[in-house]
Amino acid sequence: MEIMKDSIGAILDNIENAVEYLDEDTINNFEEIIMNSRNVFVTGAGRSGLAAKAFAMRLMHLGISAYVVGETISPAIHKSDCIIAISGSGETNTIVAAAEIAKDRGSKVLAVTSYPESRLGKLADGYLFVKGRTKQEVDDQNYMKRQIHGNYTSLTPLGTAFELTTLVFLDAVVSELMEKMEQTESDLKARHTVLE
Amino acid sequence: MEIMKDSIGAILDNIENAVEYLDEDTINNFEEIIMNSRNVFVTGAGRSGLAAKAFAMRLMHLGISAYVVGETISPAIHKSDCIIAISGSGETNTIVAAAEIAKDRGSKVLAVTSYPESRLGKLADGYLFVKGRTKQEVDDQNYMKRQIHGNYTSLTPLGTAFELTTLVFLDAVVSELMEKMEQTESDLKARHTVLE
Amino acid sequence: MEIMKDSIGAILDNIENAVEYLDEDTINNFEEIIMNSRNVFVTGAGRSGLAAKAFAMRLMHLGISAYVVGETISPAIHKSDCIIAISGSGETNTIVAAAEIAKDRGSKVLAVTSYPESRLGKLADGYLFVKGRTKQEVDDQNYMKRQIHGNYTSLTPLGTAFELTTLVFLDAVVSELMEKMEQTESDLKARHTVLE
Amino acid sequence: MEIMKDSIGAILDNIENAVEYLDEDTINNFEEIIMNSRNVFVTGAGRSGLAAKAFAMRLMHLGISAYVVGETISPAIHKSDCIIAISGSGETNTIVAAAEIAKDRGSKVLAVTSYPESRLGKLADGYLFVKGRTKQEVDDQNYMKRQIHGNYTSLTPLGTAFELTTLVFLDAVVSELMEKMEQTESDLKARHTVLE
Repeated sequence: MEIMKDSIGAILDNIENAVEYLDEDTINNFEEIIMNSRNVFVTGAGRSGLAAKAFAMRLMHLGISAYVVGETISPAIHKSDCIIAISGSGETNTIVAAAEIAKDRGSKVLAVTSYPESRLGKLADGYLFVKGRTKQEVDDQNYMKRQIHGNYTSLTPLGTAFELTTLVFLDAVVSELMEKMEQTESDLKARHTVLE
Repeated sequence: MEIMKDSIGAILDNIENAVEYLDEDTINNFEEIIMNSRNVFVTGAGRSGLAAKAFAMRLMHLGISAYVVGETISPAIHKSDCIIAISGSGETNTIVAAAEIAKDRGSKVLAVTSYPESRLGKLADGYLFVKGRTKQEVDDQNYMKRQIHGNYTSLTPLGTAFELTTLVFLDAVVSELMEKMEQTESDLKARHTVLE
Repeated sequence: MEIMKDSIGAILDNIENAVEYLDEDTINNFEEIIMNSRNVFVTGAGRSGLAAKAFAMRLMHLGISAYVVGETISPAIHKSDCIIAISGSGETNTIVAAAEIAKDRGSKVLAVTSYPESRLGKLADGYLFVKGRTKQEVDDQNYMKRQIHGNYTSLTPLGTAFELTTLVFLDAVVSELMEKMEQTESDLKARHTVLE
Repeated sequence: MEIMKDSIGAILDNIENAVEYLDEDTINNFEEIIMNSRNVFVTGAGRSGLAAKAFAMRLMHLGISAYVVGETISPAIHKSDCIIAISGSGETNTIVAAAEIAKDRGSKVLAVTSYPESRLGKLADGYLFVKGRTKQEVDDQNYMKRQIHGNYTSLTPLGTAFELTTLVFLDAVVSELMEKMEQTESDLKARHTVLE
């Protein structure tokens, strides 16, 4: 169980470290755009896509009209909508492509990424900065070398650190939105599906 | 390719046969309940669930607020909503359970089934009758015996006939709804996702 | 109910018409590639994606190792695998992109399309030709003009004809595979999920 | 941003607190059952279901044959398989039902829950104990009273604390499995989908 505890420690360290990089204005802008959108679309690939869904579910609980790109009833995106695109590297092709289409249609783009200077970051109107090791780093030669010589990457393999930090940060944004939108836990509960 | 043609023939025969069992009042009632609902939920297990999603997508294209049970942003179901539950046998446990919960909350239940006298059929406020071979028949002793002696079940294995007939019938309901709601193909196209 | 019957009629006409364009060698090649692959991946956007899933479920029932692109446990694609890409127009960006990646990795590509001369069709090692009206035609000026003057497009709006014909053809391919792989309906049933 | 930081603090506190309840033998048993299963099925409702998927994806990356209940190609479960059922309360009907069916068929059941004495916990062969506030507590009268008088529930609304702790713990289990199965990050990366 030592490795399990070390892994949990590494995950928590990563989250605590990333908190230092959060900036008040950036967060407020991120939340404003969400609250001012008619529909909020979310997208992400792989486990980032699961983080996107976890957030979309809470947006729905908050009474915000939210959609997951690729799910059955996701409609056309419009000018008064925004899309939240989650990509650690900010370079995931399908995610950048979706953000570009949204941008072209006049929608706002919110990036959740470790690389604000990435293709995704550059076209964003707002973002959530998730400082963290990403798949890009995994491909990095030096990084791999360090791994071979015994570092700690297997405690948070692949995008793990980014994905978990993203999940925690987005859930913390939910708490802020609850306050700003004057929503209680009971309000959220009342919108929770009863068919599961 | 002979088997392929035989299979297509068997599928089309099944659909054409099932058309004979459609009843005008039942269809109108089915469509009325959909059009008069604030939100329309759809559910089905396995390939029936895929038919449910295909229909939900078109409901969204029609401008109807539709949700798929189990997808991320499916909210609580209410009195002014309806649920369309697809089950050939009308006895699929999770589907009947969802319909019961919906009924308890005062929502209307629409059954798409080959067995109107099933548990699902009995609690429905309206239905679409899809005459067809279902998984129930597959379990039937005599049915199995006939199969061994060479009948045509392998041309439409398991729920195939039910599922395909359901898909065709629901798409035909879409055409009726287009007329009743005065929606053109261009209207539908305008709501079609651009993010795929 | 007249429109419903007209719509069903139009759907069946479309399927029957498309059968004329099926070619024995092409079908056999399509089936051979599936049977000779270690893993079979399927992909499609929107309702074509639902058709892809319906087929993947039956491949699994047949004992073939099948995966849906984008679902949770879909692994890396390799040389000995194939990808079945469904796109009426053969030009859906994400679907063509997936097929290109697969091709680059040495996998076989099977196209299910109305346009064998499309980008998707051109890179395919085999295909299933589904003659039918596609979204491409819907964008066509003359087509729209015909619609305004009262034609039958609202009986099979958007990709409906393509999607339903695809579903029927792929289920007919399942019947052929059952024969070629000596699988009975009971064999399929034994692999059917019990957790739904 | 104060609420956001408070929320992150509450989430991390919850995780750190729950670590104290982890027990070496229980964890080893949990991991043994996973490694000794032919197929590993995962299931969970809502956001617990997303945690299940995030874990299944990593199991696949580890080279373990994993399936998500309800996804397209999920096959029949057998004696030599196990199912990992995630439910904070251990009483979610559909999840308990799936676990019961699996148990009846001779499969091993692993529960991820805050209530080992729940219906789910009682039928489990192994479990991961996730100490945490669950939806059950939310329904509790006293809990609600405390909330009205200003406690911290809106920092981790509904199942948030359970879900995030579960995600972190399961990712830490992945690190242990990497060690036990002698898998490096590069091995995982080689199995990662390239089609997204």
